[in-house]
Amino acid sequence: MDIVEIRRRVKAVRKLLRRSGVDGLVVMGVENVRYLTGFRGHDSWVLVLGRSVVLVTDSRYTEQAKAECLGCRIVERKGSIVKEVGGLLEKYSDVKILGIEDSCSVALLKTLRKKLSVKLKPVRGMVENVRIIKSDDEVKLIRKASKIAFDAMQWALEQVKPPMTELELAALYEYRLRAYNAKVSFETIVSFGPNGSRNHHQPGKRKLRKNDTILLDFGANYEGYASDMTRCYAVGKVTPFFRTVYETVARAQRAAIDKVGDGVRLCEVDAAARAVIQEAGLAVYGHGTGHGLGLQVHELPYVTGTDKKGRLKAGQVITIEPGVYLPGKMGVRLEDDVLVTKTGGRVLSADKRFDVKTDKVPLL
Amino acid sequence: MDIVEIRRRVKAVRKLLRRSGVDGLVVMGVENVRYLTGFRGHDSWVLVLGRSVVLVTDSRYTEQAKAECLGCRIVERKGSIVKEVGGLLEKYSDVKILGIEDSCSVALLKTLRKKLSVKLKPVRGMVENVRIIKSDDEVKLIRKASKIAFDAMQWALEQVKPPMTELELAALYEYRLRAYNAKVSFETIVSFGPNGSRNHHQPGKRKLRKNDTILLDFGANYEGYASDMTRCYAVGKVTPFFRTVYETVARAQRAAIDKVGDGVRLCEVDAAARAVIQEAGLAVYGHGTGHGLGLQVHELPYVTGTDKKGRLKAGQVITIEPGVYLPGKMGVRLEDDVLVTKTGGRVLSADKRFDVKTDKVPLL
Repeated sequence: MDIVEIRRRVKAVRKLLRRSGVDGLVVMGVENVRYLTGFRGHDSWVLVLGRSVVLVTDSRYTEQAKAECLGCRIVERKGSIVKEVGGLLEKYSDVKILGIEDSCSVALLKTLRKKLSVKLKPVRGMVENVRIIKSDDEVKLIRKASKIAFDAMQWALEQVKPPMTELELAALYEYRLRAYNAKVSFETIVSFGPNGSRNHHQPGKRKLRKNDTILLDFGANYEGYASDMTRCYAVGKVTPFFRTVYETVARAQRAAIDKVGDGVRLCEVDAAARAVIQEAGLAVYGHGTGHGLGLQVHELPYVTGTDKKGRLKAGQVITIEPGVYLPGKMGVRLEDDVLVTKTGGRVLSADKRFDVKTDKVPLL
Repeated sequence: MDIVEIRRRVKAVRKLLRRSGVDGLVVMGVENVRYLTGFRGHDSWVLVLGRSVVLVTDSRYTEQAKAECLGCRIVERKGSIVKEVGGLLEKYSDVKILGIEDSCSVALLKTLRKKLSVKLKPVRGMVENVRIIKSDDEVKLIRKASKIAFDAMQWALEQVKPPMTELELAALYEYRLRAYNAKVSFETIVSFGPNGSRNHHQPGKRKLRKNDTILLDFGANYEGYASDMTRCYAVGKVTPFFRTVYETVARAQRAAIDKVGDGVRLCEVDAAARAVIQEAGLAVYGHGTGHGLGLQVHELPYVTGTDKKGRLKAGQVITIEPGVYLPGKMGVRLEDDVLVTKTGGRVLSADKRFDVKTDKVPLL
C-alpha cells in the first residue's frame, strides 16, 4: 500500500459522500479506518472531509499511527473522542452535514447528536462499497493468507491420527499459524463424523476413529487480510454414500465457480451450485453460497439467491461454499476463495485440487 | 445454571424494564441472550415480555437451542428475524412500547422502525446491570478460567528460553488452552523488553535475550466466562530500576485491592493505585485501573477516576491493573481478577503471589 493507493481510496469515498449529500464522514469501523489510512490500531476514528483526512487517536497509539499512517493528519486527543471531533469540526466550517456510518450504535449516535453542532446523517457503505473491489496488492495478501492457512493445516494433518480430538487438531492448526506471523480469521471449525452437519460446530472432545470423516473450515488473517476455506477428508476408508455426497458437492462448487465472471448476477452463481445438489436428489443447503472477503472475513458482496439484481465485478474476491448436511449423520462442504476477473473466476487457494478434473474424496 | 437462576435473572430484567417504561425488550447481544436463556449460539434474539421469554433462532441452531435453553419458548424462524419478531409481537397485544438495546446499530433500528408496528424505545443496560452482580456459579467459572489461563501460561513458560520469539510464546500458550477446552478471552499480549510499554502490543518476531524482561497480558474463556491477568518477569538478571518499578506497581496494585469492598467508590480504588505510583515519582498510567469481567472480558463496572459516584457492590468481579510505562524502555503491569465481598476484595487468581507479603520480581 502506498500513498497513491490511499489517495485513490479516499477519492472514491468522497465521490460516494457527494452522492449521499454529506460534506464529510466519521469513519469508526476498524477495517475502514485501516483501509483509508493504513493505521492498524483500535479506538480511533477518521474524519474524511472535503480537503483533508484526519485520524483521531490517543496517546497509546500516537507513535504507532506516525509509523503506519499515509496521507492523513494525526491528532492525539486528550479528552473524549467525541469532544475532539467536535473541536476539529469547528475548524472546518464548510461541513454542514456530516455522514455517520449506520453501523454506529444508537447510543453513540445519540451522544454525537448531543455534542456536535453540525447536522448528522447516517449513511451506509461509503467505505465498504470502495473496499469491494480489491487492488492487486490486496489480492496478493488474500492469496498469501490462503496459502498460510493451507500450509498450517497440512502441517496439522500430518500429525492427525486416532484418537486425536477435534480440539487437538484445532490447537495444532492455530499453533502453526503463529509461525507465519498470522492468526485465525474466524473461529476454526473442526468436525469429526456426524458433527460435520452442524454449520457452527465448536471443536470438542470427540475423538477421531479408525474409519471416520473430517470437515475443516479454517482461515488465516495475514497483514489484516482474511482467507476462508473448507476441506473434507475421509479417514481409513470411504463409504460409498460419503463419496457420492462429496463428489456432488465438488461438482456443485465447480458449477458455481464456472459461472463466476464480470457482470454475472450473484443469484445465478448461487443457483448454479444449488441445481447440481438438487438434481442429485440431495438436501439443498440453508446458507448462502458465498461472501466477499478482504479486511473482513465476511464482507460485500453476498452470493445468495435473494439478491436478484446484484452482479459480480472484476476485482471482487468471494468464497464459493456449497454443502450437503444430514443432521446426526454427516456433512460435506467445500469452500474456496475466488477472484472475479474479466474472463471468469480464478481460484486463489494454494492446493492443487482445481488443477485436476477429478474430485475424489481425499483419504487420510 | 438452573431454571431457578434463569428466572431470577429474567425477573430482575423485568424490574428494570418497568422502571424504563417499556413493556418488553428485544435482546440482541450474544452474551445477554446467553445470560437469559443458556443458549450459546449466535444470530438469535430473545424477546423478554411481561409473561414470557421467547428465543428466535433459525434451523442451524434449533437442535442446539433445545438442548441448552432453560425457561424460554424456542421459535425457529423461516423468514427474516425482524419479520418473525413482528409476527410474535402481534400475538402479544399487551406490548405498546418495546425496548431495544441501545448497542443496536442505527441501521437495524431503522429497519425495526419500518417493519414493526409497536413503538420502539432504545434503552441501556437492562441486562448488563443485572449481569454486573455474579452468582456463586459464575464466580466459580471465572475462577476456573483464571486457573486455566495461569496453568497454560506456566506450561508455556517452562519452555521459554532465548532466542524464543514473542509469537512463539503466544502460540504455546494458546495451544495449551485447548487442552483445557478453553480459548483466549482476548488477543494475547506477549511483550519482550521495551515492547512492554506498548499497551496494545501484538506479539511479533522480537527474540528473547539472555537478560531481558517479559510482560504477559492473557486470559482464558471457559464455558463462556473470561479471565484476564497480567504478569511480568525478568530473565537472566534484574536491573535495579526494573526492580524498583515492579515493586512500585505491585504496591500500587495491593493498595487498590486493599481498598476494594462493598460500597466503596470506584474512584477511590482508582486513586489508591495512582497515589502509590505518583509518590514513587514514576509516570502515572493513562488507562483505567480496572474493569468488570464475566461473560465479556470488559463489562460493567469500570474502575476509573472520572466516575465520582459509582460504588462497588458485593458480587461484582473486577480487574485491578495499574502499570508504569516508559516508552522505548520498559513497561510493567500487574493485573488480577478480584471478587468484591462484604468484607473486602478476594483475589481469584490461581498463583500464590498474594499469599506472601513480598513483591519480588519473579526471575525466569
